[in-house]
Amino acid sequence: MDPKLRRMAASLLSLLLLLEGGMFSSSSSPSGLLEKVFQHLDLHQDEFVQMLKEWVAIESDSVQPVPRLRQELFRMMAVAADTLQRLGATVDSMDMGSQQLPDGQILPIPPVILAELGNDPKKATVCFYGHLDVQPAERGDGWLTDPYALTEVDGKLYGRGATDNKGPVLAWINAVSTFRALYQDLPVNIKFIIEGMEEAGSVGLEELVEKEKNRFFSGVDYIVISDNLWVSRKKPAITYGTRGNSYFTVEVKCRDQDFHSGTFGGILNEPMADLVALLGSLVDSSGHILIPGIYDQVAPLTEEEIHMYKAIDLDLEEYRNSSQVEKFLFDTKEEILMHLWRYPSLSIHGIEGAFDDPGAKTVIPGRVIGKFSIRLVPHMNLSVVEKQVTQHLQDVFSKRNSSNQMAVSMTLGLRPWIANINDNQYLAAKRAIETVFGTEPDMIRDGSTIPIARLFQEIIHKSVVMIPLGAVDDGEHSQNEKINRWNYIEGSKLFAAFFLELAKLHE
Amino acid sequence: MDPKLRRMAASLLSLLLLLEGGMFSSSSSPSGLLEKVFQHLDLHQDEFVQMLKEWVAIESDSVQPVPRLRQELFRMMAVAADTLQRLGATVDSMDMGSQQLPDGQILPIPPVILAELGNDPKKATVCFYGHLDVQPAERGDGWLTDPYALTEVDGKLYGRGATDNKGPVLAWINAVSTFRALYQDLPVNIKFIIEGMEEAGSVGLEELVEKEKNRFFSGVDYIVISDNLWVSRKKPAITYGTRGNSYFTVEVKCRDQDFHSGTFGGILNEPMADLVALLGSLVDSSGHILIPGIYDQVAPLTEEEIHMYKAIDLDLEEYRNSSQVEKFLFDTKEEILMHLWRYPSLSIHGIEGAFDDPGAKTVIPGRVIGKFSIRLVPHMNLSVVEKQVTQHLQDVFSKRNSSNQMAVSMTLGLRPWIANINDNQYLAAKRAIETVFGTEPDMIRDGSTIPIARLFQEIIHKSVVMIPLGAVDDGEHSQNEKINRWNYIEGSKLFAAFFLELAKLHE
Repeated sequence: MDPKLRRMAASLLSLLLLLEGGMFSSSSSPSGLLEKVFQHLDLHQDEFVQMLKEWVAIESDSVQPVPRLRQELFRMMAVAADTLQRLGATVDSMDMGSQQLPDGQILPIPPVILAELGNDPKKATVCFYGHLDVQPAERGDGWLTDPYALTEVDGKLYGRGATDNKGPVLAWINAVSTFRALYQDLPVNIKFIIEGMEEAGSVGLEELVEKEKNRFFSGVDYIVISDNLWVSRKKPAITYGTRGNSYFTVEVKCRDQDFHSGTFGGILNEPMADLVALLGSLVDSSGHILIPGIYDQVAPLTEEEIHMYKAIDLDLEEYRNSSQVEKFLFDTKEEILMHLWRYPSLSIHGIEGAFDDPGAKTVIPGRVIGKFSIRLVPHMNLSVVEKQVTQHLQDVFSKRNSSNQMAVSMTLGLRPWIANINDNQYLAAKRAIETVFGTEPDMIRDGSTIPIARLFQEIIHKSVVMIPLGAVDDGEHSQNEKINRWNYIEGSKLFAAFFLELAKLHE
Repeated sequence: MDPKLRRMAASLLSLLLLLEGGMFSSSSSPSGLLEKVFQHLDLHQDEFVQMLKEWVAIESDSVQPVPRLRQELFRMMAVAADTLQRLGATVDSMDMGSQQLPDGQILPIPPVILAELGNDPKKATVCFYGHLDVQPAERGDGWLTDPYALTEVDGKLYGRGATDNKGPVLAWINAVSTFRALYQDLPVNIKFIIEGMEEAGSVGLEELVEKEKNRFFSGVDYIVISDNLWVSRKKPAITYGTRGNSYFTVEVKCRDQDFHSGTFGGILNEPMADLVALLGSLVDSSGHILIPGIYDQVAPLTEEEIHMYKAIDLDLEEYRNSSQVEKFLFDTKEEILMHLWRYPSLSIHGIEGAFDDPGAKTVIPGRVIGKFSIRLVPHMNLSVVEKQVTQHLQDVFSKRNSSNQMAVSMTLGLRPWIANINDNQYLAAKRAIETVFGTEPDMIRDGSTIPIARLFQEIIHKSVVMIPLGAVDDGEHSQNEKINRWNYIEGSKLFAAFFLELAKLHE
């Protein structure tokens, strides 16, 4: 349909709806209402795309610590606050103070938006988390279009932040605004928490959520995050878990200074030889972790789970190709997904203190620190893992009879997150997906740690769901990031349907 | 003795010698002449120290690529050329052109001095190699005195370059000048090759030696280097060998980009796991190299060698303390020295391409390069070692069944150097040491590769000996570098006695 015609039809439809239903009516039957909502979202889609274009145009890069970009971030948050206010929301832009960078520079932190729309105690309250900052992007990095000028090619909307996370935030806003445009009461109370520092580590967010626990978050029943991707190009997904992470350092020290390999090679317990043996004892060539007891607490695999994994839409060959990996450790979709999501993995990241530059240097490093981490899954316990790792390394080291000193430390511990997929909002999300997409969702997890889900669950103690909108090939954080027009508009519908399904379950 | 008195006595002695022996006489009996030479060196020692002071005062730092320091280097070489000319030598200051540094800067290279004194075909010709450039030094680095103002404390002459290598170069010059001062013919023909870029890798030296092979070096019988240290504080040494070095890289590659350990951890043959296993297969915790066949070519230990090692003066406890090492791999002096000098050693230097900064990064490096080297000893052959290492790594890697690619490369190959200690000049050096110090020398090697010895031997095909003058605690390259007055003056005597002993063997 020609955009002009589409706009005319849209105006006409609004008028008809107005005449039929009366202003601020909530009398439409749910299915009838849903149809009108969908029609509205379809007919006004160019406006929604235009809005995304305006938001993408703001270079809200939180990663590069540059005053100009911080100004853009503040502008982005102001534009969002204004949009929410025009929707009728009560908006608080929370002052987040400033941060001092390692180089001494002090930069202001953009405000976090806390907004609410409706506070009917009879309705469920659902809070949406999103972020409006983006990763850096420059044309010269390999972008085929200006990353800050949303450009549509074959139904794909290219632009930095299109899928991560401006598109999904706007999809939620589109869903809400459609009810307003149709003069329909919102089926649920809506809250927003929108930040501008996610790509830079969500500076100050945890403190804010903790502080607002008994105020802003007091009435919240459900928390929705839409900041990841499907595992398919076409089939939608719901994410119900993420792995945790325990990051370890193991230091081996002979003395603080390095040695010359000519003058000392042959008479020392060289720290690198010890460290390489320690790191080599952690995982075998099939990816199996060799630390005794490490698999003891891993949740047993259920029949139900196996079925869920089988149903997931993943083109293994395409995945392998796009990953540029010759061969994975496993041959089946199920095994691969399980080893990414429901089994722990151990990766060796590197060594600090050794010779790491190009070229040749005949040094015997005097003190080296190996770094590795274990991605944790339910029901692994951080302190048990810490003990197992430490004990194992001590055992391996003592067998070497080395005169060096070894010290193990867990420098970071993030627990895995897993949700109860029988919660009301999971049911609502599933039904909404079936309504909009005509298919059951892939029930997926994320192999990475997404601290925000765990953070909300731990502080607010409410059900958290992640409902991604973008397709697997959206390229978040990469060059030529995009969101499909289809995903953006159907995603807006999905959120609207989700509101109605949640309301039904709350009746 | 008071310095003034010493100077008066010295003048008187010269006069007496003149009257007794006649000008330019060579009639003194060798032992009588030696006594006079020793007396002269003792009586004039303050002048020799003064000369060292003047040379140390020139900041001839070749390491820092700064125009001002290059000027100082040129000045140093000019002062040395002038000194040699005043001795009566024919001096060529060879233009070495300039060098372009990695940053694009072009700096002139100081000339190499080729000088000769005497060309009597009936005499042996001995060529002395030395260098007059120094390592950087600043008062703020921990020097207790100004590094460029030679300062005597308790018989120790502190100053940058005092022992490495200005002191030994001057000791050789002192020996020569003493014969001149006493109006005695030199017992041998003397040549000098003195460079100013040793600490910066002897830029251009090999090409020059190659070019001068059939001209300047054509009549040379022996080459003497005095650019290392004793292993004792008191007992002199002769160095007859250095280890070589074969430097290896082993690259393991999955793809060029890194992976995120959350998104890919658990389904990959991670390059770091492969590399750590490869590096861990090289050497055991007792320092034994695990590469099959690597010890096959190592020269068998002889009874004579065992005796030489036993005779060496090394205070193990002091050595261990000054090295700041809790415990060595071996408990006896002999084992330690043999493992530094006559057995190969393998050191792992580090890994390029992995995470090596402080902090935590959850990366799976996509391509990593391990670096290690093997110090080679007689009669290990570079290409055999290269094959053995490559074969071993391929075997270990193929057992892992990894889908990654591995590539092994020997990036540097320096052969070991060993001399025939029954050569005339070794005999002469031994006798000279016995005469001056009243003891047999420690017959030592160096665990490092000193390319200059090997370079002369390979290009000129003449006997090379290293006769160190400095004590083990001289601290070359360190703060508070020094040479003892005793080592400097007795070293000058040693060189004079060496000339006479060489001449005797040449009769």
